Amino acid sequence: MEEGRKKTYTVHFEPSGLKVKVRSGTILLKAARRAGIYLSSICGGDGYCGKCKVIIDEGQFESRPTTLLTPDETRENTVLACQTKVLSDMTVTVPKSHTLEASQILMDTDAHRFSELAGEPAAGIFEYDPLVQKLCLEMTPPSVQDHTADHERLYLAIREKIDAPIMQTGIRILQKLPNALSKANYRAAVTIGRRGGTTEVMEVEPGRRCETNFAVAVDLGTTTVVAHLINLTNATTVDAEATYNSQINFGEDYIRRIIYAEENEAYDEMQNRIVHDINDLIVTLVSRQKIDLKDITAIVCAGNTAMIHFLLNLDPRRIRREPYVASASFIPPLRAAEVGIQINKRGLLYCLPSVAAYIGSDIVAGVLTTRIYTKKGISLFVDIGTNGEVVLGNSDWLACASSSAGPAFEGSGVKHGMRAQAGAIEKLDILGDGSIEYKTIGNKHPAGICGSGLLDTLAELFINGIIDRTGRFITNGETRVIEGDEGKQFQIAPAGNKHHEIVITQADIDNLVRSKAGVFAAIRVLMESTQTKTEDLEAIYLAGGFGNFLNVRQAVTIGMLPDIPLDRLQFVGNTSIAGAKTVLLSRKALETAEKIAESMTYFDLMSHPGYMDEFIKASFLPHTDLSLFPSLLTMTRGT
Amino acid sequence: MEEGRKKTYTVHFEPSGLKVKVRSGTILLKAARRAGIYLSSICGGDGYCGKCKVIIDEGQFESRPTTLLTPDETRENTVLACQTKVLSDMTVTVPKSHTLEASQILMDTDAHRFSELAGEPAAGIFEYDPLVQKLCLEMTPPSVQDHTADHERLYLAIREKIDAPIMQTGIRILQKLPNALSKANYRAAVTIGRRGGTTEVMEVEPGRRCETNFAVAVDLGTTTVVAHLINLTNATTVDAEATYNSQINFGEDYIRRIIYAEENEAYDEMQNRIVHDINDLIVTLVSRQKIDLKDITAIVCAGNTAMIHFLLNLDPRRIRREPYVASASFIPPLRAAEVGIQINKRGLLYCLPSVAAYIGSDIVAGVLTTRIYTKKGISLFVDIGTNGEVVLGNSDWLACASSSAGPAFEGSGVKHGMRAQAGAIEKLDILGDGSIEYKTIGNKHPAGICGSGLLDTLAELFINGIIDRTGRFITNGETRVIEGDEGKQFQIAPAGNKHHEIVITQADIDNLVRSKAGVFAAIRVLMESTQTKTEDLEAIYLAGGFGNFLNVRQAVTIGMLPDIPLDRLQFVGNTSIAGAKTVLLSRKALETAEKIAESMTYFDLMSHPGYMDEFIKASFLPHTDLSLFPSLLTMTRGT
Repeated sequence: MEEGRKKTYTVHFEPSGLKVKVRSGTILLKAARRAGIYLSSICGGDGYCGKCKVIIDEGQFESRPTTLLTPDETRENTVLACQTKVLSDMTVTVPKSHTLEASQILMDTDAHRFSELAGEPAAGIFEYDPLVQKLCLEMTPPSVQDHTADHERLYLAIREKIDAPIMQTGIRILQKLPNALSKANYRAAVTIGRRGGTTEVMEVEPGRRCETNFAVAVDLGTTTVVAHLINLTNATTVDAEATYNSQINFGEDYIRRIIYAEENEAYDEMQNRIVHDINDLIVTLVSRQKIDLKDITAIVCAGNTAMIHFLLNLDPRRIRREPYVASASFIPPLRAAEVGIQINKRGLLYCLPSVAAYIGSDIVAGVLTTRIYTKKGISLFVDIGTNGEVVLGNSDWLACASSSAGPAFEGSGVKHGMRAQAGAIEKLDILGDGSIEYKTIGNKHPAGICGSGLLDTLAELFINGIIDRTGRFITNGETRVIEGDEGKQFQIAPAGNKHHEIVITQADIDNLVRSKAGVFAAIRVLMESTQTKTEDLEAIYLAGGFGNFLNVRQAVTIGMLPDIPLDRLQFVGNTSIAGAKTVLLSRKALETAEKIAESMTYFDLMSHPGYMDEFIKASFLPHTDLSLFPSLLTMTRGT
Repeated sequence: MEEGRKKTYTVHFEPSGLKVKVRSGTILLKAARRAGIYLSSICGGDGYCGKCKVIIDEGQFESRPTTLLTPDETRENTVLACQTKVLSDMTVTVPKSHTLEASQILMDTDAHRFSELAGEPAAGIFEYDPLVQKLCLEMTPPSVQDHTADHERLYLAIREKIDAPIMQTGIRILQKLPNALSKANYRAAVTIGRRGGTTEVMEVEPGRRCETNFAVAVDLGTTTVVAHLINLTNATTVDAEATYNSQINFGEDYIRRIIYAEENEAYDEMQNRIVHDINDLIVTLVSRQKIDLKDITAIVCAGNTAMIHFLLNLDPRRIRREPYVASASFIPPLRAAEVGIQINKRGLLYCLPSVAAYIGSDIVAGVLTTRIYTKKGISLFVDIGTNGEVVLGNSDWLACASSSAGPAFEGSGVKHGMRAQAGAIEKLDILGDGSIEYKTIGNKHPAGICGSGLLDTLAELFINGIIDRTGRFITNGETRVIEGDEGKQFQIAPAGNKHHEIVITQADIDNLVRSKAGVFAAIRVLMESTQTKTEDLEAIYLAGGFGNFLNVRQAVTIGMLPDIPLDRLQFVGNTSIAGAKTVLLSRKALETAEKIAESMTYFDLMSHPGYMDEFIKASFLPHTDLSLFPSLLTMTRGT
């Protein structure tokens, strides 16, 4: 192929129709990114995850050789975008299964799926005392008998309504105060925000416009960003929206993204991306609800430690380096505008506290939401996302650990894995006759398998004896197990005229088993360290972005969760956003979250002597030690 | 005179040599201001104080007729700059006695005179606990065993050194924290500032540069701005400097300036002026002491309520309108940069609290400095400046009032009155033989009379029978009382070859008597209202910008202060800056100042039924009721 001389070429992407001009030699992944197309990329462009496949329809290019493409794919001009240079004008088709939506295109019905909670935030448990509130004040105007200055008059009136021993007012508010107060004869709507021990006067408006005060709760996930719009005056959720985290083509997991940011000095870009996503969500919500941006006075974020670092542009480098230290675990309240979030210009940004580099505020939010910190009996909280975090404890103690499980149950590293969106197989059964019954999200043609579907698949393959305890396919008699390009695979759905074949490969199963083994090993380490026996567990709460029809029992079947009676197992959905909402509506809840974060003992599995042993023992289905899973003995056909 | 068609002309000012280009028709006072020449102007340009006299040496002009110029002056082309339009290029001489220094030219020896205190701030009374301090911290670096985040590690280290239950750190500090800490292996110099109940981390520097931390205390006077440079690490005053308040040609008293700002929408300009003055002082101090501006981390201001409003650009309009309300009396700590003060960019600005529109934080500083709030016996605090404020009280109660006395004792409204600067007569005696002995500041040729000199003059004229109890000249036998242009006048010094004649006129005496009557009437109202008798007064503290040789006794002689034994009278100098310094060095002192301000009961004399009566009775020398001044009966010759 002929080398271009730094000419500029147009790359045309199908089916989106998006175009971009790039210089000759530009990496195609970068070109796609600049066009606003978010190609999936686990490895962050290193060429070994094989997720960024695209087809070159027309044009010259240069691609590094790779083993990740089949001979068929190479013949069809399928390339890895991260390994391919643009050498002429070109037209590129982005296969639908390999893209994420562009960040500008928000998910619709899917959003609500992600944004669903197991229940509303612990209403009634924490007293209603929002972090930001609007007070309707009626003051006596000054007179010769009472010449108290406006500022102190305001403070007196505020303190009649709420507890605010220490107050602070910025100079801009002071400057406009006399006018704001006298305009409506000392009737005013005053917005106050809680900042640590200080109460800040954020806004003073003449008159009685007190009922218009909103906030946003955000779950800052590595893959998905979810926002709920809350009416602060009556503590109701008005609307919800979600989008993909548009950092995603810098790496699917956050460690990759930190490496990318470090190598490319791209901290600002990382921040811009996530802030852009949040602003997009907020704009969508306010447009739909016809709310003025300035009436959004607070935003509360929960997320893993890396995401919070990216959001605030804190130095994330040591999160991935021994001794794995965060810049900050307890983030002071900040002005949202300081990081670029567009709400009321004096609106406040709160981040829930985190525990360690690998136990973020999303997990603290989970503990807050499940209330395991209040219970006498021991509970287990497990959050399966891009990572798998585990918390064990009760009202006396809390222990936590993070397994580097990888995002297999989010569909990554799985050939036909996908997020829980339309067309994803979210539920699967292998019937007695060996036939397969499945349900897709939105009852669409099957496009892939999401987390709950993968859980079902692994469990059903196992209990139906299609895979053995090591996860290997057992070929005798099972006609669906055939030899594919990448070794043995199991056909879940044959190709139809509007969809491709859906299979699960040996490599997929290995990945899923590794993931579940990581989670279970983490659980075992915590249980061993705290001398907790399986029968001591009074409850297990499973959180994460699974589909709606999660069969928690299957998580026990595959040996991801301890074997306890089914009625003690509960799927709790997105506890990160639930926690963020709870905190938003109650100062006491924020204080509680801080206490939780402070009291959680972190177990660093990477340096823990027993972890690798537990991991190996958990790399079987369900486990090498079957006595840990007594209930399974009655149901498995295989092994 | 020919009317120019908006041409541009150059006005050349002598003896300064300063030039300015202005459009035809520009008022000469404005031209002078723009050239950087600060002409005295009590009336703010309304043409009735007669203070802005200049001589047109050359050029065409148009002047409104005025009775404030003698026929001789008019012949010599003396004009009131505020009533004169520029109609050609011109050369103007500014008589030395009528100017203030340009704000750029700082006072030298004079500065120290203004900046002198009766004593250092109450050292040892309040514990050393400065509002901003630098801590030398040595932290254990993180390890696998101790992966506490940098932010919390820092907080732990700070809390080992100081009491800081509630802390706050801005996002810029958080962003650079990991680098700042790891650079010198977790040894850091950390600047912390107290903001209400919150302790803010203002700066984190790697290493051990902890001994370099300075602050500035400022007395924001209507006429003079004084700044002291304080080394915060050892609580010493390093240097002092003073300048004229360059707002002065918008009016000598602050009411005039408020009117000017209101009529000309000149709030920003008012702020710019005062901020410019402060910045000038700071630059002078740091240059002389070879200190980096960024090592000035705090500034504490005390001043009257109007000055604080101008500084912060708070709405000052209602200070001069019933019911006389301030925008704010308790100013929260702000970032100095927010108002344009150039110190460390995160440096904090503290304003001492005030009581009312006419009782400013300078008076609260006075109460703090004199410690009358701690004493069982009743004390009286009197501050004679551009206004005359009075505080009466003890450890149980504090009452205060402000007399609209006018700045006669500051030399305004007095023909040869001047500030206490070189050449001012600061001490005067009339000897037995009728001859006069005086002392000038710096032993220069007499240029005028400053406050202490005026006090002496009035008292000596009275006790020597040259004026009667109504303040009228008694002509029989006294050859020095002659008929001048403006009625009777008394010659203090004849003209020499390097100085003009110094006289005191009947109008001057009337002004001084009105001033002292205002102050005494205010004292009487407070004493009557609190049923305090003269003999109950255990101490009187007189503060103000008098000369060094103030004879406090003379203030009793003329009936300005109650007649108590001389050993209970004390001149305390500039208590405003002393209070600012005390607060700077101790959080407890700031809290005390706040308690003082809160507990002071303000008496509004303008609406007080007894005030006018007291004023009339006090408009005699010493008073209509001589029984109030028993000690005078033995010393006066006159009446």
